[in-house]
Amino acid sequence: MDATESETACFEAGIKFGTLYHQFAGTPVSPESAASLETAMADAIENQPHCVDVTVDVLEDAIADALAEQSADYLELTGRFMEVEMVVEYEGTRVETSMSMAGDYPMMRVDSVE
Amino acid sequence: MDATESETACFEAGIKFGTLYHQFAGTPVSPESAASLETAMADAIENQPHCVDVTVDVLEDAIADALAEQSADYLELTGRFMEVEMVVEYEGTRVETSMSMAGDYPMMRVDSVE
Amino acid sequence: MDATESETACFEAGIKFGTLYHQFAGTPVSPESAASLETAMADAIENQPHCVDVTVDVLEDAIADALAEQSADYLELTGRFMEVEMVVEYEGTRVETSMSMAGDYPMMRVDSVE
Amino acid sequence: MDATESETACFEAGIKFGTLYHQFAGTPVSPESAASLETAMADAIENQPHCVDVTVDVLEDAIADALAEQSADYLELTGRFMEVEMVVEYEGTRVETSMSMAGDYPMMRVDSVE
Repeated sequence: MDATESETACFEAGIKFGTLYHQFAGTPVSPESAASLETAMADAIENQPHCVDVTVDVLEDAIADALAEQSADYLELTGRFMEVEMVVEYEGTRVETSMSMAGDYPMMRVDSVE
Repeated sequence: MDATESETACFEAGIKFGTLYHQFAGTPVSPESAASLETAMADAIENQPHCVDVTVDVLEDAIADALAEQSADYLELTGRFMEVEMVVEYEGTRVETSMSMAGDYPMMRVDSVE
Repeated sequence: MDATESETACFEAGIKFGTLYHQFAGTPVSPESAASLETAMADAIENQPHCVDVTVDVLEDAIADALAEQSADYLELTGRFMEVEMVVEYEGTRVETSMSMAGDYPMMRVDSVE
Repeated sequence: MDATESETACFEAGIKFGTLYHQFAGTPVSPESAASLETAMADAIENQPHCVDVTVDVLEDAIADALAEQSADYLELTGRFMEVEMVVEYEGTRVETSMSMAGDYPMMRVDSVE
């Protein structure tokens, strides 16, 4: 069957999450550069179609904790070091999604479909 | 409302597409390296949860045509130079998706939800 | 032979350029999001060892011109849409490098070694 | 001063290393997909100017060990899971370079300049 409007909206939301994660994973990051990376990530993804609002929290404290256990003074961004909320609107459907750690896995979720 | 099973399946499919595109966009590619890149892209994305089958066609002819008009003998992979089909299964739902050019835009689509 | 100090300094400078380009190539960008991307790119690369100063100019005008000829209202960042200057210091050697278009190719250059 | 031929050769070698690392870091990988990723990475980077030979070893055993300690059955490629050798020739200079772990840091090195 063809996708419904709400299924397409969820597909679009998934695209944005995969984009955000794999465009920016690996970026050198430190507590000092976390803020500018948050802003750039949100602004970049908001360019994409149907993407209404993106909030990225790069977790300075988690980064600082990880740096205390390694030799270099920066690390590469992974899902462990960010939390994301994203709103996609497609036709009449609004999809709210988020990413945060579920145990050791950065889990992307659909929080609501309206 | 919470997402239905089929909406979640479409969200998962979208994640895989965003991942594939933004992990590999920018990769140096030529007609000679197209085949190994196709295989690696498909194998990489098939690692992700719920991803049953991925087929990537890196378009050697389109690459060769573009190279004829530029000075370098390789280019950076973009959506213009690949076509992708992907099948995601989540619980009891099977989602078939694809990407190909719609005019000048690499369009990702849900082809069917069963 | 082993690398000299100045050869190692140039190697380090090259690493930073490859990193900057291939981390951020493909990022969705528009004239409105150019400024935050510039800042994040510079801050990210300055985290890397021996990297003293990075200046990124994402070319809003070139982006606006390209957008006028395509259907989508954003594009993916490539070398055509940015100019970069970078200073690396390794031991006693200072290397100044830059990237800008040479015809149709984004050329990375060592401008001076002191 | 202008860069010497050997300094430029080392700069070019650095570019290739930064490219390889940041293009492919974050790629979903498992022991089963390691081989195709190795081939694609080497083929991709060999497209770049002056790059004569690239050998990538994606470390299946290290990946398997890491997977035994986490919930997902794939991980994202980082420097911990690959070793690379690369030869760049620029004009009359041959530069041999490599990347492997130095403690907890993926160290890129110039091994020889001839």
